[in-house]
Amino acid sequence: MEAKASGPPKGTRAPNRIVIDDVTPCVAGGAYAVKRVVGEPVRVAATVFADGHDEVAVVLSHQPPGARAWVDLPMASVNPGLDRWEAMFTPMERGVHRFRVLGWIDHFASWQHLVRRKIDAGVEVGSDLLTGAALLEAAAADTTKREAAPLLEAATALRAGDLLVVTDPGSPTRPSAAALFRSRLRKADAAAGPVIEVLVERERALFSTWYELFPRSWSPEPGRPGTLRDVADRLDYVADLGFDVLYLPPIHPIGEAFRKGRNNAEQAGPADPGSPWAIGAEAGGHTAVHPDLGTLDDLRHLVKRAADNGIELALDLALQCSPDHPWVTEHPEWFRHRPDGTIQYAENPPKKYQDIYPLDFESVAWRTLWETLLDVVRFWLDQGVTIFRVDNPHTKPFAFWAWLIGEVRATHPGTIFLAEAFTRPAVMQRLGQVGFTQSYTYFAWRQSAQELTEYFTELTTPPSVDQFRPNAWPNTPDILTFQLQGAPREQFAIRLLLAATLSASYGIYGPVFELCENQGTDNGKEEYLDSEKYEVHRWDLGDPASLRELVATVNAIRYGQLALHTNRTLRFHHSENDQLLCFSKTAHDGADPDPSVPARNPVLVVVNLDPVWNQGGTLELDADALGVDPVRPYEVHDLLTDDRYTWTGVRPFVELRPPLAPGHVFRVSQPPAS
Amino acid sequence: MEAKASGPPKGTRAPNRIVIDDVTPCVAGGAYAVKRVVGEPVRVAATVFADGHDEVAVVLSHQPPGARAWVDLPMASVNPGLDRWEAMFTPMERGVHRFRVLGWIDHFASWQHLVRRKIDAGVEVGSDLLTGAALLEAAAADTTKREAAPLLEAATALRAGDLLVVTDPGSPTRPSAAALFRSRLRKADAAAGPVIEVLVERERALFSTWYELFPRSWSPEPGRPGTLRDVADRLDYVADLGFDVLYLPPIHPIGEAFRKGRNNAEQAGPADPGSPWAIGAEAGGHTAVHPDLGTLDDLRHLVKRAADNGIELALDLALQCSPDHPWVTEHPEWFRHRPDGTIQYAENPPKKYQDIYPLDFESVAWRTLWETLLDVVRFWLDQGVTIFRVDNPHTKPFAFWAWLIGEVRATHPGTIFLAEAFTRPAVMQRLGQVGFTQSYTYFAWRQSAQELTEYFTELTTPPSVDQFRPNAWPNTPDILTFQLQGAPREQFAIRLLLAATLSASYGIYGPVFELCENQGTDNGKEEYLDSEKYEVHRWDLGDPASLRELVATVNAIRYGQLALHTNRTLRFHHSENDQLLCFSKTAHDGADPDPSVPARNPVLVVVNLDPVWNQGGTLELDADALGVDPVRPYEVHDLLTDDRYTWTGVRPFVELRPPLAPGHVFRVSQPPAS
Repeated sequence: MEAKASGPPKGTRAPNRIVIDDVTPCVAGGAYAVKRVVGEPVRVAATVFADGHDEVAVVLSHQPPGARAWVDLPMASVNPGLDRWEAMFTPMERGVHRFRVLGWIDHFASWQHLVRRKIDAGVEVGSDLLTGAALLEAAAADTTKREAAPLLEAATALRAGDLLVVTDPGSPTRPSAAALFRSRLRKADAAAGPVIEVLVERERALFSTWYELFPRSWSPEPGRPGTLRDVADRLDYVADLGFDVLYLPPIHPIGEAFRKGRNNAEQAGPADPGSPWAIGAEAGGHTAVHPDLGTLDDLRHLVKRAADNGIELALDLALQCSPDHPWVTEHPEWFRHRPDGTIQYAENPPKKYQDIYPLDFESVAWRTLWETLLDVVRFWLDQGVTIFRVDNPHTKPFAFWAWLIGEVRATHPGTIFLAEAFTRPAVMQRLGQVGFTQSYTYFAWRQSAQELTEYFTELTTPPSVDQFRPNAWPNTPDILTFQLQGAPREQFAIRLLLAATLSASYGIYGPVFELCENQGTDNGKEEYLDSEKYEVHRWDLGDPASLRELVATVNAIRYGQLALHTNRTLRFHHSENDQLLCFSKTAHDGADPDPSVPARNPVLVVVNLDPVWNQGGTLELDADALGVDPVRPYEVHDLLTDDRYTWTGVRPFVELRPPLAPGHVFRVSQPPAS
Repeated sequence: MEAKASGPPKGTRAPNRIVIDDVTPCVAGGAYAVKRVVGEPVRVAATVFADGHDEVAVVLSHQPPGARAWVDLPMASVNPGLDRWEAMFTPMERGVHRFRVLGWIDHFASWQHLVRRKIDAGVEVGSDLLTGAALLEAAAADTTKREAAPLLEAATALRAGDLLVVTDPGSPTRPSAAALFRSRLRKADAAAGPVIEVLVERERALFSTWYELFPRSWSPEPGRPGTLRDVADRLDYVADLGFDVLYLPPIHPIGEAFRKGRNNAEQAGPADPGSPWAIGAEAGGHTAVHPDLGTLDDLRHLVKRAADNGIELALDLALQCSPDHPWVTEHPEWFRHRPDGTIQYAENPPKKYQDIYPLDFESVAWRTLWETLLDVVRFWLDQGVTIFRVDNPHTKPFAFWAWLIGEVRATHPGTIFLAEAFTRPAVMQRLGQVGFTQSYTYFAWRQSAQELTEYFTELTTPPSVDQFRPNAWPNTPDILTFQLQGAPREQFAIRLLLAATLSASYGIYGPVFELCENQGTDNGKEEYLDSEKYEVHRWDLGDPASLRELVATVNAIRYGQLALHTNRTLRFHHSENDQLLCFSKTAHDGADPDPSVPARNPVLVVVNLDPVWNQGGTLELDADALGVDPVRPYEVHDLLTDDRYTWTGVRPFVELRPPLAPGHVFRVSQPPAS
């Protein structure tokens, strides 16, 4: 305490009187960048105050990437009792923006405030006008000739008894004088909060629609596994469903040693293809394409065809090796060793994963390992890959990811990294902080209205919303929840609608999802029976029971409604029936920083969480969140069914019948009051 | 972002894998010290985790004042899902303690965990024992001979197949090996959180009982004003009431220019003594004693007599001047000037306070002013004064207080500063952060059960409880709330009991308080009619309607019950009747850092907030907070009335009758289960 309190203050001026506290948004105390996409507003708030009764001026100063100058915006006092100030800017450029809050004692404003009160009270102010003139003249003496002129003009007006400088906000002398006076004071005596970085990325970092498939199951003809060319030939299916990211499990050669068989059997049969995550064989490792899938040329062909369809390709980044991986012999120093000299395989007693060798990120040779892994990513970037779904990032050091993602961003700023970490909240949030663009979530296990409300409220409010972008998946090759095991088609429709509307980014692992594949293993785990991870399948994409039309419709609605491109505006509305989950989102278009402008383009979603029974009930809508005046009629247009209703008030009754629709997705509109 | 993420990691070791976040307690991000008194525990919590599945070891390292070594305590994982760890230390020495949280990957514990699971699952571990032995041998090679011996002993045991090192917590080899292995690892590879300072003060910084009086009203004979000697002669009254701090308004010469008359009249009459806060006259300024009150000798006499009665003297530090203050002529540069050259008086349009000249803390001569003000404080310290009640500290710069209090603490660490700031929460909290020992509160205006519950919950939880020590006053010379204006005696009793039990420090301005003086001005303000600020009074201390006996009883209870010496353990209990406010406190004795030890010496308070009507109702007690087993009977002993009751369960019925008692103050006890 003493050390900080004492040290007789230095400098000829008295120490600064301004306190700037609790600046938001801020990630991990400023250690990492706040996340935004282009056009997504940054609403900055800070607690700013000084001793005494002087007026305080507060400015938000921000700097686009590469700029040297700072742009200044006045901050508004939004809660004087709590000394809270706010302002907003909307970054329209990718890269690292910076902002900070500045504050200073505004002696001229304090003088104006005092003199206004005296004038209002009928007190004589002749002497005060001279004080004000002297303030202006001192400022003029301290600034450029050009800036000094209006200050001196105002001072002259004051000395002549012109009260307009004080009383008339439209006075030609007043605002310029005040503004210039501020600019002088700021140079001399502004307190500054910390510089906070905002990493602004392209829109797909926030809003993206993912489809995962195993290429080897996409063969058009029986008897041979599918290839990357086969996938390229069926991209119309993925595009018609409205997906913009196609994610493939690892496409590399698969090890043969200790290969797992069907249903994760210890011993593979001779025809079993093995798990794509057992990476590396004689044909190569992390930079090779499995010969059965095709060649690097085929991969580049697929990237190009995908791009033609508005789809980006996402590869899997699984940083582990099969015993047959070339690195095992070329770089044994990158692995842990057992006392007998063999390499340590993964284990989770009593289970042994002898087909997987973890890499040792702490080995003495860590630096060459890290650099090689960065080279792997660069290799695929060079093939046109722009997105990586990272397998189990939480089992590699945070510092590694911070470094790798930072290096990639420096040369390829549009690259998207999706963290596949299903672990404790602090670990998942940290991965977001150190740089992952998007993250898998607990969505699959949040099923009741209360669970969904609590979880998505957490994800869409600070600190999470500024550092962790959710990507909601109802299923993955590793996850078929108990809720979906044996579940009817309607349950799949519900989960689809929830994922697609609660989260700006979502994905499905198909075609098992749209085909409502619901057979779980019988071993008490939330896993698929006869999983594609261990065998080749063939799918009937034209199955009349497929949800593909619903998927296409929902994805089309997502594209059309800006409200569904963001998470930040999510609001839950009360429903008397807890089987009806009701929430809304509104669009940020970034065009209008004025917070008094009503919410725009609202979408109101009502989901029937019951896959079997009709559910009805009265909602209680938050009219402010929807931006409607509840006294006047407003229209709700169900984008799923094209039905339109006119509502008045905030308590509509809704009823949903599972076979017909999993929910309503209403576009809400109200003509302006006449 | 890039700048932080990249920078190819340096050093030969891979970067540290541990994250240490959200360390508490922490004040203003670590910019200021956490507040404690001797014997008051510091419960440290932190979020600590790493990637992967390795075991993490977490240590709380703390350092008493002046020590060079750090004391290490293991932290316990109190919420593994949230990665939250806790440990506690109890500083028993005054001064600045320091603490920090350390964490590291505990490879040996990870190995133990893995091997234990294998043994449990019946898996062969022969090879693992060799791995463990190698870990220990590597550690031994890296440490001193003395530390190496038990490591090598354990390694030998492992190589011989001795599983006890893993399975038996009581094995002679196991714990020492683990402990030493940790100590080796920490030296090499511990991550460290920030160093956080804890300013540990004497108990009276937290627990104190104040009495304010105007000496000039304490004359034993009519016709002359009271003196410091008169006060010294009546200290028995203050001591009998159980106060340990006697606070006097400014004792300095009072200016004559623009002196205010009775009831703050613009013009004083010839006999009006003036406000003590209009400091400075021909007889001197801030280091002089008003001739009518006596001499410096008399002040020293009063200090000594007070000390004989267990009472400390608190002087008022009001940093402002009357126009007659010597500084006005000696140091005109310390004041602001008007255009006509005169000194700027205080004003609050349309009011002018021409009797008060504020000091200009930003004048060009600020440094000599600050140093002179520090000299003023040192002057009174030299007279034996140990406590200062600071008038309006929020109208002087925070940096000034941080500096002045820091300088005083360096030489007089026991000095207590009470901040008299009634302003916005951020400003009041900041004054606590920069060093004020105690602070006035909004208590006088928190009157309903809900208001009191919300406000004292805020004051007794972080961040406030670590930086801001409340001192609750039901009245001051400036404040007679509307609630007390015209109020019956019972209302004064209620406010006394609330202040004395909700807050470890409280005070009253007497004898008007215990005499239940309730006449307010008639001008819509919460002020006393015929205030002592402007005139001399005489008081009948023996008035039979005085609350002095209740005051003495309540203060005696406060001294006897350690639970009432702290704020940190305050818990509110539900009451079905919102006129009955129910809360409890328990003692920290600092002796037992084990959180599983039940709460000690609980005191349960029930206050009837209604001064007129009987109020009864059922409470719903939090048995955990009281540390009682509600299934067995427990005794509640009302320390106000000496009544005893035996209760079982958590829903007792209570009834309070205003003329008899403002509330219950129960000592709760329960014999141990047989």
